[in-house]
Amino acid sequence: MNEFELIRRYFAAARCAQGGDGVVLGIGDDCALLALPAGEQLAVSTDTLVAGVHFPEACDAFLLGQRALAVSASDLAAMGATPLAFTLALTLPSANETWLAEFARGLQLMAQNCSLALVGGDTTRGPLSLTLTVFGRVPSGQALLRSGARVGDLLCVGGELGDAAGALPLVLGQREAAPEVAEPLLARYWSPQPQLALGQALRGRATAALDISDGLLADCGHIAKASQVALEIEMEQVPLSAALRAFAGEEQARICALGGGDDYRLAFTLPPALLADLQADWPDVRVIGRVLAGSGVQLLDAADQPIDPPRGGYQHF
Amino acid sequence: MNEFELIRRYFAAARCAQGGDGVVLGIGDDCALLALPAGEQLAVSTDTLVAGVHFPEACDAFLLGQRALAVSASDLAAMGATPLAFTLALTLPSANETWLAEFARGLQLMAQNCSLALVGGDTTRGPLSLTLTVFGRVPSGQALLRSGARVGDLLCVGGELGDAAGALPLVLGQREAAPEVAEPLLARYWSPQPQLALGQALRGRATAALDISDGLLADCGHIAKASQVALEIEMEQVPLSAALRAFAGEEQARICALGGGDDYRLAFTLPPALLADLQADWPDVRVIGRVLAGSGVQLLDAADQPIDPPRGGYQHF
Repeated sequence: MNEFELIRRYFAAARCAQGGDGVVLGIGDDCALLALPAGEQLAVSTDTLVAGVHFPEACDAFLLGQRALAVSASDLAAMGATPLAFTLALTLPSANETWLAEFARGLQLMAQNCSLALVGGDTTRGPLSLTLTVFGRVPSGQALLRSGARVGDLLCVGGELGDAAGALPLVLGQREAAPEVAEPLLARYWSPQPQLALGQALRGRATAALDISDGLLADCGHIAKASQVALEIEMEQVPLSAALRAFAGEEQARICALGGGDDYRLAFTLPPALLADLQADWPDVRVIGRVLAGSGVQLLDAADQPIDPPRGGYQHF
Repeated sequence: MNEFELIRRYFAAARCAQGGDGVVLGIGDDCALLALPAGEQLAVSTDTLVAGVHFPEACDAFLLGQRALAVSASDLAAMGATPLAFTLALTLPSANETWLAEFARGLQLMAQNCSLALVGGDTTRGPLSLTLTVFGRVPSGQALLRSGARVGDLLCVGGELGDAAGALPLVLGQREAAPEVAEPLLARYWSPQPQLALGQALRGRATAALDISDGLLADCGHIAKASQVALEIEMEQVPLSAALRAFAGEEQARICALGGGDDYRLAFTLPPALLADLQADWPDVRVIGRVLAGSGVQLLDAADQPIDPPRGGYQHF
């Protein structure tokens, strides 16, 4: 089977699943063609996942397909973009039909979930890795950048943090847990839900935004730097799930929430006057701090005293 | 050095080299933002090059940077698109500064050559491979597809074929040759020139087009299939360079020209009435055959008799 047959056979379903309005020409020619409505811009992001670095070499292909697209789609959420399409560059050691069928099934499910049409790509032989490029559209001038945070804004997150990082010992088969604990944590790791609708709702509201992929502290550092402000985070306000507390304990859960990036939740800054309206529609949004003059990120304890980030057992894949 | 520093340090020059009109936001946020003029569509193509599969593991990083971008830009040429921007997903076993500096220099040179701005990407640790996604713009409805060839059209190519395939024994260090022979062949392999200007000139003229990446016969097969026509190729009309004839001999040169895809020349179909005008501006364009009713690709010998494609020593990397 050559690469063209591979692509056609296993990704036909994902390709057809979403006839996105903007897709003029999909897989099969030298390029895909996308159209944008007048007054909109194209948002583009590229991410690579390498076996043994970003996911276990022998992991479930269905779960990998889901996760790979979710990770990329999350960058569209972070810009407030409406999903349009994606390309997949898949490098495989061999053309294993079972693996491909499962991978395509996971990819397709997440593609439907995110309203992203597969419009092209490349299939090559080599050590297992995936590069996805996602495309979205956003009204000109309304994309959510990292650089717009203003002194006085609130710092918010889109929901509970740390579950995916906490799930790593389960992902790697190093620990076990009861299903009611293991399942929600593993689901968060393997099929993170890109906060696309929240991102679109933040257009015209949030002053800065990103998706948490490097960990809350590191990513808040990116906002602080791009916006030339300081961010203060109240550690007690960072939302943790019951499953993560039960599995990892309070302290370790906090370390996962501050340092782990695999949840792909949004973090954003918001003028205080807009909070009530936003939370009415998005009850999971939580205020975790505020924007100050200065630079860098400062963590505060329960008594609002500056503390160093807790160190310890956070496991990086 | 982390991935962010890597990207910033080595690719800053390439990023800044072309402030393409369409680039609203480049590297540094969750997505890049591109704008399109009214009435234009976005052309997108993704290609992966894997070490040991598509290029020698130990090859010169400067040449690899040049070649990787040229290969991708050629897909824009094939659609008649005007180059806009690209993303680079680079997977490296280690952060070797010398290698990165040379690779970035080659990439930047080809980026300037092709008027492509680097707008984003990803740098990851793993076995060496590159995935480039290129973006171009094309007036709505004017993209050159594979599917428009009509009975009676001429089959043309953008210039001499086979040099890059013929260069493989030189690339792999299996043979040597005098500089006046080796240099043009190696140049064709390492820095193929995407026929971007020719592609744009073919808008509104060519009925079908692609860039020859799988080899002339295989790629003509793609046009025939997409257009539901037959293509006839006069073997004697396929243009061969003097260097290739000298290095490989007539018969082997022909095998390279028919089967080798590394030249990245355009192949296209053209109504006969448009040929003289086109050749006035593009003297390297050569008619090599014609479009007939039917299916598949037929090779003709010097006496216009159908023959099987010559088989033999063509070396695939």
